Amino acid sequence: MPSPDYDKNNIFAKILRGEIPSVRVYEDEHTIAFMDVMPQAPGHVLVIPREGSRNLLDADPAVLSRTIPVVQKLANAVKEAFEADGVFIAQFNEPAAGQTVFHLHFHVIPRHEGAGLKPHGGKMEDGAVLAAHAEKIRAALGNS
Amino acid sequence: MPSPDYDKNNIFAKILRGEIPSVRVYEDEHTIAFMDVMPQAPGHVLVIPREGSRNLLDADPAVLSRTIPVVQKLANAVKEAFEADGVFIAQFNEPAAGQTVFHLHFHVIPRHEGAGLKPHGGKMEDGAVLAAHAEKIRAALGNS
Repeated sequence: MPSPDYDKNNIFAKILRGEIPSVRVYEDEHTIAFMDVMPQAPGHVLVIPREGSRNLLDADPAVLSRTIPVVQKLANAVKEAFEADGVFIAQFNEPAAGQTVFHLHFHVIPRHEGAGLKPHGGKMEDGAVLAAHAEKIRAALGNS
Repeated sequence: MPSPDYDKNNIFAKILRGEIPSVRVYEDEHTIAFMDVMPQAPGHVLVIPREGSRNLLDADPAVLSRTIPVVQKLANAVKEAFEADGVFIAQFNEPAAGQTVFHLHFHVIPRHEGAGLKPHGGKMEDGAVLAAHAEKIRAALGNS
């Protein structure tokens, strides 16, 4: 059951319902993962549960427990796909923490030594670039 | 069973074994939470599983599933204890992503509108301040 604090017209709810497009890299019964359209680094993906909550604070703990292994799966996949040196996981709750879409999501961001991150919610990436990056991540998921 | 990539002499392993002190705010059979000694904001806590893994990438998924509800519990507690506007969850994998201690840990950091974060791994906080902050968090956990 969605959290009472949940607005079902947020953009990720629309992505889940297929009302607006996304570049998906993974999905299962409970979870989807797709490219962040304003990536902080190449390969930046978002992992979200299908079940609605505003963020981590009001989520069903069982939903969190099902989601975090998918975060791990994507973290290992983006590390492989982008030959990254590390992976940053970020999860923002409420605007004061940087949250801009009010459906629980985990950012999974490949990191390379000496390469900084672009700002959160910065420049929109070209669709063809996102599609190419998604293809690399799907290939890495297939290998794991 | 600890991950093969795990060094059991890292500082959090020593904290778990009680060989070096920490200011604990929570513990259960599988997990502990304690004050970050170099807080990025007042109330910055770390949540770690007792089971050893280098980070999220090599963790047992079942350990992740048990740990994330505790992250949620602490996120709600620090939000209440510090009357925070939001909470930032950060999890760093490998030095390129900012990891400095090689035992899986989740940063739980209260955020206030207009207040920036101090750098990760910055200035050591006074022990009495950490103890006072821990007391507020324990009180909030008792309320939840």
